Amino acid sequence: MRGKAHGYSCDATEEAQVVDLVARVEAEIGPIEVACYNAAVGASHSITEFPADAYERVWRINTFGAFVMGREVSKRMVERGRGTILFTGATSALRGKAGLAAFAGSKHALRALSESMARELFPKNIHVAHVIIDGPIDTPLIRRVMPSVFEERPADGVLIPDDIAETYWTIHCQPRSAWLHETQLRPWVEPW
Amino acid sequence: MRGKAHGYSCDATEEAQVVDLVARVEAEIGPIEVACYNAAVGASHSITEFPADAYERVWRINTFGAFVMGREVSKRMVERGRGTILFTGATSALRGKAGLAAFAGSKHALRALSESMARELFPKNIHVAHVIIDGPIDTPLIRRVMPSVFEERPADGVLIPDDIAETYWTIHCQPRSAWLHETQLRPWVEPW
Amino acid sequence: MRGKAHGYSCDATEEAQVVDLVARVEAEIGPIEVACYNAAVGASHSITEFPADAYERVWRINTFGAFVMGREVSKRMVERGRGTILFTGATSALRGKAGLAAFAGSKHALRALSESMARELFPKNIHVAHVIIDGPIDTPLIRRVMPSVFEERPADGVLIPDDIAETYWTIHCQPRSAWLHETQLRPWVEPW
Amino acid sequence: MRGKAHGYSCDATEEAQVVDLVARVEAEIGPIEVACYNAAVGASHSITEFPADAYERVWRINTFGAFVMGREVSKRMVERGRGTILFTGATSALRGKAGLAAFAGSKHALRALSESMARELFPKNIHVAHVIIDGPIDTPLIRRVMPSVFEERPADGVLIPDDIAETYWTIHCQPRSAWLHETQLRPWVEPW
Repeated sequence: MRGKAHGYSCDATEEAQVVDLVARVEAEIGPIEVACYNAAVGASHSITEFPADAYERVWRINTFGAFVMGREVSKRMVERGRGTILFTGATSALRGKAGLAAFAGSKHALRALSESMARELFPKNIHVAHVIIDGPIDTPLIRRVMPSVFEERPADGVLIPDDIAETYWTIHCQPRSAWLHETQLRPWVEPW
Repeated sequence: MRGKAHGYSCDATEEAQVVDLVARVEAEIGPIEVACYNAAVGASHSITEFPADAYERVWRINTFGAFVMGREVSKRMVERGRGTILFTGATSALRGKAGLAAFAGSKHALRALSESMARELFPKNIHVAHVIIDGPIDTPLIRRVMPSVFEERPADGVLIPDDIAETYWTIHCQPRSAWLHETQLRPWVEPW
Repeated sequence: MRGKAHGYSCDATEEAQVVDLVARVEAEIGPIEVACYNAAVGASHSITEFPADAYERVWRINTFGAFVMGREVSKRMVERGRGTILFTGATSALRGKAGLAAFAGSKHALRALSESMARELFPKNIHVAHVIIDGPIDTPLIRRVMPSVFEERPADGVLIPDDIAETYWTIHCQPRSAWLHETQLRPWVEPW
Repeated sequence: MRGKAHGYSCDATEEAQVVDLVARVEAEIGPIEVACYNAAVGASHSITEFPADAYERVWRINTFGAFVMGREVSKRMVERGRGTILFTGATSALRGKAGLAAFAGSKHALRALSESMARELFPKNIHVAHVIIDGPIDTPLIRRVMPSVFEERPADGVLIPDDIAETYWTIHCQPRSAWLHETQLRPWVEPW
């Protein structure tokens, strides 16, 4: 059985918009049971000429927006004594890479946010998890902007959105005596 | 629905016995779909007086037995082009600790075994995963040998075997475009 | 032999001021041989009521300022084909903690910045290193703001600034066939 | 100034020989101030056909010998209240790799040994460190057995033994308010 999707738009870099989004969703649809933050953007420049506004923008979308959403949602979940909050990480959460100072920094910081929240919220019955996606996801957008990825690797070397969702769902369903806080997903044929 | 359990006994430190065990299970019950290595023993001594035989015994049970089982099972799974192999790790897989040179060493090595196998076997459609159990498990044995654990912590601060099994099962069921190789389970109220 | 210190003041959160600082130091004193970024500030709040401006300020001082300094300095060092850039990290670069979402996030991001820069700049003969300080440093400021630290722990359980400087200096002197990129310093009597 | 070298031979896989070696060195030359364990051997096989004796031998040389030496030396250093113990690690201490289950396992376990010893021995004024060598070392032996390494990479892409020794020496000289326990050395032009 599939649920029904409701679209809301929001600029994740604006605190007020994220605050408002969470309030509206709760008012119009109901208590948020599972919140998932996926918003992410990249930027690749040599460190010697990395524009400061590009560096900041990556942090603002990938990390700051997650922080505000995490705060707004956990505030309500703590009152209700239940809920699941999922953050989507990337390989860059674990390693820096030439050109990726901004992206890696933002994903490292997101990981720290998730772990800090988990340490505080686990004992309040709120399950916080950080799922590192270790490879390209097979979406129309990514097929369009990164066509080479799909030409270079075997047909199976990309993550299918429904398969990722399957794991997010099982995390939400985990019994609380044995919660995971972090894991990494990658395709079976991806060399790593 | 629960399956039917068959008991086999085996000394995990003896290569021949592990080789034989896997052969007998395959012959008498059928192709192994999921293999799980849990055998583990500890030892705590100051490094200055750690008996060499204790150091070796811990490695032999926790690591060497896992290596032989992993080899015997993966040999067959590679032929069949399918299967899941699960190794049970511990917090000591990630950190050494005063007194625990042997246990931490054996669990670090088990983790390396699991990762090396995953890198080789994922592309052969065999799912290898290392699950770090980050806390005491609520079994009659552990209740008897470590009673203080159960007195000191909140009733919920221990992992329930069925809840761990739930995650092992979902790992086995993961679709292969998005396999996890490692995760860590801990109780919601455990301070960490 | 000790050198001579020159004081410059600068608001690390303002790109223009950091850009100007590096330019002035180079113009007035000479080519920067070793640059070290230590500026850091903390903030501790429950995630449910963490002010967004506090979250941002910690990132801006601990991470963004380091990024701008790193960019300005590496630009010049790349031209000269030499130099050392040192970033001062904290235990929170490796682990999140309840209440420390901002500080941990900023130090995780700083670590990613340092690693990304090292990957790009090592082959240009620029040594980039991240030194994680794992304990309280014995300075007048810290003695004043965190007196309990110095009462609670043994006299030797704090890091002495000159001893930290010793390691920074040896990093700068390392021959380039065997450069370290990261290490962690802690007092000998600190239990960890 | 260089010291004078004395050669002793010993089978690191035999507890009695290592015990005897440490006793003889102390009796014939004097108290050991710095002990360094470098002995290591590799083995590369598919997991499906990894000989158990090869798996064990790698552990016995790379890990078990280090454990016995560490125990024998730390026993004496604890009595004297001083000393430095250095373990030479490898990239495989941090990551498993297809074919390298034995080598990675042994180096992971060595790292756990080193960290467990550090946690116990730091407060007894004994400095224990684990130095991960992240690349090929330029020795006549390695030039002979791995000639391709030296052909494929730039002249500077290998670690020079004297340069590694420089860092071992600075670790030994570190003041104890700011000791490092682990670091990683790699050549400046090595892509990583």
